[in-house]
This record gives sequence, structure tokens and C-alpha cells, in this order.
Amino acid sequence: MSNQLTPYQAPLGNLPNQTGNARHWYLPASDRTVHWGYFSKQLQPVVEVSSGDYVTLECLTHQAGDDPARMISGDRGIESVYHWTRDQKNVKRRGAGPMNAANGAGGGQGVHILTGPVRVQGALPGDVLEVRILDMYPRPCANPEYAGRTFGTNLAANWGYHYHDLIEDPKPREVVTIYELDGGDFARPLYNYRWGPITDPDGIEHRIYDYPGLVVDPEKYRPKRGVLRNVRVPIRPHFGTLGVAPKEADIVSSIPPNYTGGNVDDWRIGKGATLYYPVSVEGALLSAGDTHAAQGDSELCGTAIESSWTGLFQLILHKQRDIAAGSHLSQVHWPLLETHDQWVVHGFSYPRYLTDLGANAQQEIFQKSSVDLAMRDAYRKIRDFLMQVHALSEDEAISLISVAVDFGITQIVDGNWGVHASLAKKIFIDGGG
Amino acid sequence: MSNQLTPYQAPLGNLPNQTGNARHWYLPASDRTVHWGYFSKQLQPVVEVSSGDYVTLECLTHQAGDDPARMISGDRGIESVYHWTRDQKNVKRRGAGPMNAANGAGGGQGVHILTGPVRVQGALPGDVLEVRILDMYPRPCANPEYAGRTFGTNLAANWGYHYHDLIEDPKPREVVTIYELDGGDFARPLYNYRWGPITDPDGIEHRIYDYPGLVVDPEKYRPKRGVLRNVRVPIRPHFGTLGVAPKEADIVSSIPPNYTGGNVDDWRIGKGATLYYPVSVEGALLSAGDTHAAQGDSELCGTAIESSWTGLFQLILHKQRDIAAGSHLSQVHWPLLETHDQWVVHGFSYPRYLTDLGANAQQEIFQKSSVDLAMRDAYRKIRDFLMQVHALSEDEAISLISVAVDFGITQIVDGNWGVHASLAKKIFIDGGG
Repeated sequence: MSNQLTPYQAPLGNLPNQTGNARHWYLPASDRTVHWGYFSKQLQPVVEVSSGDYVTLECLTHQAGDDPARMISGDRGIESVYHWTRDQKNVKRRGAGPMNAANGAGGGQGVHILTGPVRVQGALPGDVLEVRILDMYPRPCANPEYAGRTFGTNLAANWGYHYHDLIEDPKPREVVTIYELDGGDFARPLYNYRWGPITDPDGIEHRIYDYPGLVVDPEKYRPKRGVLRNVRVPIRPHFGTLGVAPKEADIVSSIPPNYTGGNVDDWRIGKGATLYYPVSVEGALLSAGDTHAAQGDSELCGTAIESSWTGLFQLILHKQRDIAAGSHLSQVHWPLLETHDQWVVHGFSYPRYLTDLGANAQQEIFQKSSVDLAMRDAYRKIRDFLMQVHALSEDEAISLISVAVDFGITQIVDGNWGVHASLAKKIFIDGGG
Repeated sequence: MSNQLTPYQAPLGNLPNQTGNARHWYLPASDRTVHWGYFSKQLQPVVEVSSGDYVTLECLTHQAGDDPARMISGDRGIESVYHWTRDQKNVKRRGAGPMNAANGAGGGQGVHILTGPVRVQGALPGDVLEVRILDMYPRPCANPEYAGRTFGTNLAANWGYHYHDLIEDPKPREVVTIYELDGGDFARPLYNYRWGPITDPDGIEHRIYDYPGLVVDPEKYRPKRGVLRNVRVPIRPHFGTLGVAPKEADIVSSIPPNYTGGNVDDWRIGKGATLYYPVSVEGALLSAGDTHAAQGDSELCGTAIESSWTGLFQLILHKQRDIAAGSHLSQVHWPLLETHDQWVVHGFSYPRYLTDLGANAQQEIFQKSSVDLAMRDAYRKIRDFLMQVHALSEDEAISLISVAVDFGITQIVDGNWGVHASLAKKIFIDGGG
């Protein structure tokens, strides 16, 4: 965590300097380095880097207001982003909606606090941006009462899969569960409460969690302690949202994932992983946020353990002219994930939803998604990947998919639902690298 | 592999004898111990066991005819099941359809060769049958030319998910890929061919793979060798089909999985796993088959690496009156799977499809399934499991599901499509056992 609130060049330290002139940029999270709830090709970059450079991105959870004592207080960066009084709201726009939306500026059409964008020199549409996640570490609490500890929040949200399929009363309801990281491999549940209603500093009443950055006092909602007493959650730190700006619209909600990445919400997008994104606009404009301490495949209730983490990335630009036919880069028309032992293909209900669905895409995507559509897209993508990158016939690819590729449900809560296909590298005798 | 073709009592050997009078039954696979393509409460049991007894079940793949030299020839048991000449067809009924169906007796409405049924003394509807898979080993080839080796076949079938979504010509097509187990952790592709047409011994022409047990000569279909040259498939030996007879109909296709188990096609149903089934009819009537050397989550092309394996099982009957409220047994209204480190909940498009869909259920299930429906069922089942067995509130269950439970696509090819939810035992501080 930085004491500064604006980007600066940090020492390379022991980071490899392959290019001979690699630099390391540090982006503290503050009201000057984040955009809230949207991607936009019109945003001014907060830093410009060259291929091979490193960037450290502090990322903040957009749900720190669920327990401000544990997730906001005493942290200058977080406080600068969340500051909102009747007189002053530091980050006014939250979401891609209208600035005069009834529930607040930006309409909450997009919720994630995104650090960036990072402009990559020379990046043009058709190029591929390789994003290596070299490290990821939690942001310690700055409130003296909880100094050094790390917390996260899970919201069973109105956009969750369960919301209209509940047994217990009252129905429906939104519930926050606060977790603490134990410093090792697990997060431990602390307490939960039924969220809302809340009146924001501008006097708008929110009966449901329909706008990001609302700061509540959990004690007012009669928190239950000792919940999930026998449970510890294996942590899977990752970036829920990581991607580049799309060209199709000036301002785009951060919620639905897209061919440019964004809110893919695959817990495999963590330390050691490499992402490949198609560059859609000049400069690429990479942003990161929505860090999660843990999430299951499906993110069923609408959120993960939402928690503030910092990531160290290396960015490599692959120019279109240098991409060999049949290389894995040649297939990057969607967010491709490489881990130590797997290739992961991301299918979506609408792979390029902004064009697939036309003028009202940003609204309609929330009505039209299905797991079935995402499964179809994932099948086609993994088949094409195997045929193009591994030079298999269609018959070879289909047999291999059936006997060795695992399809999982990435998320069913982000508008554009996802199914991923996981391909183990060990399947390939030459390593499949 | 037994030299006998009928069931016999085998030595217990070093199997634990917890009850003091446990026995070990050996069921060779032969035309006298299998039923082909269906479950039926009306079948005569091939053996009757007591709770605590062991059974070894030889299981045969129903696709051995894809390469008879490698998967049939020289094996008395397999030959007795597959024997079909103009004059003699040892196992006439194949499937739950009419005996005078145009494509052959039983209509191929159900395809799996199932060994059993095993009757469990004292089992009544409402009880739970626990099936422990203690061991599983491949059936060696008995043809001197390939003696001791083990082969399997993958068919990209007309019922596959890909069948009407192909790029290369001709479309559509069915393709067989033959694999060989390497004796270690992998299966290696040998060759493939485009299947059919074939005229069966009764003179019926099959233009598509619409009836099980058709025996072809691969050489007639110009096999391609050297396919998938850079590939080795990690093996995941399991029982594609394992379950008890349902009460809802006299004869039921083996293809759609049901609340009684059957063709669940979850590759986790292998050595070391324990299954729990609700007993639906008196005696339970357990059958096993459809053994697979490997399969991915989705079984996309319609089949796995179909291969003949033998399993050693222990069967434990839990009487309804002895099942404690809140125990995991109290939730066994559907096939519950326990592995060394996970509980796996199986959701289906129609959890009790024979009653959910009414009189034409066995036909309609093939038109009405979707991943979305199976996801909904899996959500409800894992939520109820956590609430009942782990005494969680609904809010606790939903938060835990979202941050720690993984939903995967079991299969999308068996009529009643499946989604499974995997719950790691380590989540529970007390072991969650």
C-alpha cells in the first residue's frame, strides 16, 4: 500500500529486465486513479507503459461500505474513493448510466471500482495484449482497531441466481456476510446481516443494493455473529474484473463480461496466470479491479468474497503482424487464460454482446443470457482453439473435447453468463505450451 | 476376468468382514448376467446379497463392436453377450422400446450393457443403498494378437452435442476413435474412422448408430492412423451407469439419468467413491455398466472412452427407520456422491423425469432438457443439503455456495442433462464427513 495517491515509477527491484529498459509503474488506488462501474475508450489513461513494463495496480472492492470500519476507515486511498457527503462526492459517476439517474449518477449500471486505465504504447486494434499476473497480495486494514488484518464481504444480491428462489422468509432479501482472511489458506466467516434500506448522502433511499459505494453501519441491521461456525473457505485470490476497453460504445457497464475481458469472474485469474486479450482500441486501456478472496464456479449469489487486493502485472504487447498463424495468439478473439497447467477458454451467452444484441445491448443482455448459450459458445471456442492451435481435424478435436475437456459454469450473475472449458496442458505430449 | 459365465461366491480374501458373515459374490459378464439398455423392476436378480456383502461386477462396454478384434474376440463373456447371427441373437432386447421396433428389438431406446441386477435383501422403498466402489480394473484383451492390452472407443455420435454444429464436411457424420490404455495414467489414440452404414445380421440397415451392439469391420471404413499424435488422455476410470431400478415404469431406458442414478456419467464415480441411492423398489436391484476409461465434464460428443472394466463394490443398506434426521443419508432423494475429499450433488434437467414429464416422459426428456434447468436443480439440491446436513440457515448456505461451491456440466448428451455441484470437505472444520 502506497502513501501516495498518484502513479509513480517504482524500482524494478529484482524483476527481470528482458527488454533492457523495462520500467515498473505503481498505481495507488485513489479517486485520481480509478473509474467506477464502467470501461470507456474515452478515459484518460492514468499511466502509459511500454511492452515489457511492469505495473502494480492497487485494487479496491466496491463493497467496502458493507463494513466500513474493517474495509474503509483509516485508509487514505479507499477513503478518497468512497468519500461522499452531501457536499462532496469524490467519484461521482458510478456506472455507465445517465448522470441524472434516479438512483445516483451513472445509475449503478456497472459497479466495480477499476484501477486504470493503463495505456500501452503502440497498441492497436488487432494486436493482442498479454497480461501476466506475477503477484497478488491483500490490502491490510488501516483502521488501528483491526490493523494489518484483511476482510472481505459477500453479498447475496438482488442480481443473484437465488434471489427469487428462496425458502426462508422474508422473500426476497439481500444478505451481507463478512469474512476475515486467516493469513493462510482460508477465510473465516465473522457475521452476517440483512442489508438495507439505506438513505445515501444525497437523500436517495435505496431499498435494494442498486448503487455501488453505499456505506452502512452494520450494527443498525442487527448482525448475527457466529454464522457458518464450522466453515472455513479456501481462498482463491483473483481479479474478478480485468480487461481492456471495447470500441463498440463510448461507455460500457463493467458488469457483463465481453470479448475484451472485463468481469469474467473466473477464480483462475489469479497469481501465476496469464491473460490474453484482443486489443480493441488504440492504447488497449487496461483496467483491473473487483478483487476476490474466494469464489466458486457460478458465483451463485451475485458476489464472491469481495476484498481489496493489489496485483503486480507484466504487460506484453503482441503486434498483429508478428502473430503467427496457428499460434495461440492467433486465436485471441476473446479472453484466453493460461495457468501453470491449463488453458482455459471463456464462453459467454453472447460472445460480442454489444454488437450481437444491437442498440439496447447493455439492457437486453440482462434478460437474454443462459447457461445453454454460454455452453454453445464455449464448445465452439475450444473446438476452434484445438483445430487452429493444435492443428487437429474437427473429428480429432471433438473426440478430445469429449474425453478430456471439462466444462464448468463460470458465473450466472453478470448479465452475460459464462461457461469455461478447461484443457490440461499435460494432455499434449510436447507440453501444449 | 472369470472363466465362468454365471455368478458364484468368491473368497473374501483380505476384505474386511465387519458383519462377521460378509460374503463376496462374483458376477462374470455374460449373456446370463446382463441386461441391455434398460432398468426394470421386473428383472430377475442375478444374485441376492445382504447388507455388508461384496460384489465384483464385470462390466462390458456396449460399443465393443467398434473394434471387435480389440474388444470382443477371444473373450467368452463378451462373445456370449454380443453373439448375433441370422440364427441366434443371445441378448435380444436392447433398449426399453418395443420388441418389434424397426431398428431392432428394444429399439435401442437405451444402450448400456448392465451387469445385474443385484438384489439387496430387505431393501424397501425409502431405504438408502450405499455403494462403495473399492476397486476398478480394466478388462484385458483376450485376443492373442493383443493379449493383455486394453482398448476403448469414443464415438462422436448422432446424439452428441456437436452433431448439428460442425464445420468440416460431410455433415453430419459419426466418427469412432479407438484408444489404448498405456498401463499407466493415460490412454493413447490409435486411429479413427467415419462410422457406417452397416447392415446387421437380421438384415436391417443402420445408416446412423441407432442400435447398440452393432459389430463392424473398421477396415471397411478406411481408418486414419496417427490421429491425435501429440495427445495422451489422462484416464479417469469410472462407471458411467450405476444405479437402482425405478418404480415408476416397468421398463426404463438406461440413457437418461434419474433420481435412482443410472447413467449419471460423472467421472468422479470411480475407485474410492461412495454412492448413495434412494431405494425405489423392493430389493433395490442395483446394476452397473457403461464403464469409461476417461471422460470430460460434458461428455460432449455423446460418449467417453468406452471400455470394459470390472468393479469391486461393497453394498450397505440403510433402513429408513435408522436414518437420523439431519444426517447426509436423510437427503438421499437423488444420487449423492462422496469422494475422498468432496461431496458431489447431482442436478438434472428433470430430477424425477418419469413423473415430472408424465406418460411420454421417456420420449419427451430428449426434447426438453437444458443446462439451465439442471443448474436450477443443482442449486436447490446443494442448498437443501447444506441446510439439512450442516444445519445452516438459508443465508449461510447461499453465501457458502457462492464463495466455495463449484458447478460443473456433467453431461449434455443423455437426454436428462446434468449439472453437478462439488463441495470440498475441507471447508468444514470438523471434516464434513
